[in-house]
Amino acid sequence: MKRNAIVAQSGGPSPVINSSLLGVLDGCHDFPDRIGKVYAAWHGVEGLLQEQLIDMGTQDPEELRLLRTTTSAGAVGTCRYKLTDTQAEDFERIIEVMKAHDAGYFFYIGGNDSMDTAHKVSRLAVERGVELKATGVPKTIDNDVGDPEFKLIDHTPGYGSAARYWSYVVQNVNEENRGMSVSESVSVLQAMGRKSGWIPAAARLADPEREMPLQMYFAEGGHNLESLGENVNRELGRSGRCIVVVSEGFDVGGLGEMHDGFGHIEYGASRSTVAQAVINYLNKVGLKSRGYASGQVPGVLQRSTSIFSSTVDIEEAYQVGRKAVEVGVTEGSGWMATILRSSDSPYRVRYDKVPLDKVAASARQLPPDWITSDGMDVTDAFIRYARPLIGEDWPEIPLSGGLQRFARLQIRFIDKRLPEYLPVRFR
Amino acid sequence: MKRNAIVAQSGGPSPVINSSLLGVLDGCHDFPDRIGKVYAAWHGVEGLLQEQLIDMGTQDPEELRLLRTTTSAGAVGTCRYKLTDTQAEDFERIIEVMKAHDAGYFFYIGGNDSMDTAHKVSRLAVERGVELKATGVPKTIDNDVGDPEFKLIDHTPGYGSAARYWSYVVQNVNEENRGMSVSESVSVLQAMGRKSGWIPAAARLADPEREMPLQMYFAEGGHNLESLGENVNRELGRSGRCIVVVSEGFDVGGLGEMHDGFGHIEYGASRSTVAQAVINYLNKVGLKSRGYASGQVPGVLQRSTSIFSSTVDIEEAYQVGRKAVEVGVTEGSGWMATILRSSDSPYRVRYDKVPLDKVAASARQLPPDWITSDGMDVTDAFIRYARPLIGEDWPEIPLSGGLQRFARLQIRFIDKRLPEYLPVRFR
Repeated sequence: MKRNAIVAQSGGPSPVINSSLLGVLDGCHDFPDRIGKVYAAWHGVEGLLQEQLIDMGTQDPEELRLLRTTTSAGAVGTCRYKLTDTQAEDFERIIEVMKAHDAGYFFYIGGNDSMDTAHKVSRLAVERGVELKATGVPKTIDNDVGDPEFKLIDHTPGYGSAARYWSYVVQNVNEENRGMSVSESVSVLQAMGRKSGWIPAAARLADPEREMPLQMYFAEGGHNLESLGENVNRELGRSGRCIVVVSEGFDVGGLGEMHDGFGHIEYGASRSTVAQAVINYLNKVGLKSRGYASGQVPGVLQRSTSIFSSTVDIEEAYQVGRKAVEVGVTEGSGWMATILRSSDSPYRVRYDKVPLDKVAASARQLPPDWITSDGMDVTDAFIRYARPLIGEDWPEIPLSGGLQRFARLQIRFIDKRLPEYLPVRFR
Repeated sequence: MKRNAIVAQSGGPSPVINSSLLGVLDGCHDFPDRIGKVYAAWHGVEGLLQEQLIDMGTQDPEELRLLRTTTSAGAVGTCRYKLTDTQAEDFERIIEVMKAHDAGYFFYIGGNDSMDTAHKVSRLAVERGVELKATGVPKTIDNDVGDPEFKLIDHTPGYGSAARYWSYVVQNVNEENRGMSVSESVSVLQAMGRKSGWIPAAARLADPEREMPLQMYFAEGGHNLESLGENVNRELGRSGRCIVVVSEGFDVGGLGEMHDGFGHIEYGASRSTVAQAVINYLNKVGLKSRGYASGQVPGVLQRSTSIFSSTVDIEEAYQVGRKAVEVGVTEGSGWMATILRSSDSPYRVRYDKVPLDKVAASARQLPPDWITSDGMDVTDAFIRYARPLIGEDWPEIPLSGGLQRFARLQIRFIDKRLPEYLPVRFR
């Protein structure tokens, strides 16, 4: 029996989230006897709840092809709308929308929270006797979905591109830092990753031979401002310069407040950034008079700069999206598509699945034995793991008139079939 | 008569400063009967004063070729060492070093201050009866060297690449910002350019048709935090989102202090960044409860990200370096090489010269009639001017093992011929 499908995105975007969206669309075309129309929810679950659905079948196929190299979630939107157990009405509404549009498949592209949501939708459908296959498509630059043994999933789409961003940016900053004054030049760079150090750790890929005066500070490293200051001063005594990559999850002892004015936690929206707190501290404890420190807070640039997409990541994000459809159609509800590694060198992966509830609450950190004993670097085991993910070549980001050519979809909602609904959190 | 040449870099680097260095080297080879050895001063005038000279003739030619696409000044170094009239000893020392190494040519790659230094060296050489041709090679991402009528120089090498950075980054951020929550998403990006708005203005190139909710704030625009807040809220009421590019020279009324702990003025080294001050203000005056703001401070990334080099800028930086040698050899001392525009479309330039003293004290700002009446945008005249500078295609940044392959020169100083000298500012 042929049923429709709804696909939605959730959480912070990545440079390759649209590639997964395209993978889902192509995956649906792989099953013409099982899947009819494919609708994308506008801005994820926000649009889903409000019945704002876009018929992807009416889009220009050439624009859809461009999704592969179109960064971020501007094409159909994502959202930060949280669905917790207290929002039973929202969950029921999702089931109603699915029924109203004869959707037998729900593909949810997102991180841990989204996998939790997909899991709950899957369970509720069973309870309500509704035929609905909910399937997760992993996506997060944080690489924190999964288990510490990499048996459920090796890495998440999005991470390879964030890692490539940091690999290349640190290479560039090393040229900048090396070129400046002959003594006491400190470049501080703030990386995303509040609870796990995967993103700042990728700076090591810029310098696998450990030739740069590079230090990394992440939640798992056990450092504080004082020990950071000592480490930096020691490096200045040795080489006269230092590159400090510090995670926004680094504990600056209350100097950089991590919440913003409205309760949201948003990158860079705190009263002071971690990078600024580090610089202010370094100034306080004193570089010599010829020295200076500069702060860089790339913020969303590390998850949106298209040219730093990893070709490996683009392809894997696509394949995971496609695999999710196969899993939903052939295995039923309640799975997340995964990437598992077959070998490091040559790098080979295979696509598989894992029950949603096994990853829903996961929060994978750097394995302790991948952190060096000084707590400010990662080991060669990390390099072997992460190096293949950034790919080899520049991605082909198409240009038009000298500017990047991104996908432009027609945002037209299909006719609504249900009464208006105001999502619980908007009331 | 054959004389040696010394080349030095000064001030903040750009993605194409090394291309000018290569242009100078190739330019010297154009005159084998006039120029013998070419020495690069290690870290600009700091190395020059301390007689730290690198023989560029002994470098691997393939590494030298890589200078064309090697970002920043890591190859031979630059510096922030200032030379003012109170440092007569330093000026005399420069002349002594030139004499000691039979240098008849001095090529100085830098911004306004450096052109002032080159001018003074040129004059002092005449006073001392020393045969020395000092020639300037313009370099600054700030585009603030020159006259408001663009008759002395059309633009400076470095600006095209900074403009390309902002064109592309704003495109990416627009995808990010569009994709996030359906209402009240504000992305604040802090651009360099303390006294002039050339760099933030380049954000307009991301959107020449004015389709994005993009606002730019620069020193020349006449805005303050209060009017910025009103503009942003108005845009949020209209489109639900806003991209704010704010110059570090934007007046945040003392909320973002612009000096660091040791008197140096360094990007991002202040107690708070301008972007942070803007975000804190927006939070204070209130976005609605669903909204959030994020802050991005690319800092040195906007002048060091190699893949955002403009192909036009790379070529022009090279040609200006080469032209400087021609000018020095054929016209004598006291000139700066320039780029003049022959036509906008098709874009054509010619290389020329201008007396150093005419540009030494210049500080070109955005022409008032290129700023829109609302003070937060630039006109089509700016677009016509700046658009050709960012080029058409991605530059070819060579990779090796998946990482960027930058030039690696042998840093070995030639034998010293003078007593040790401690630069005035190091005492």
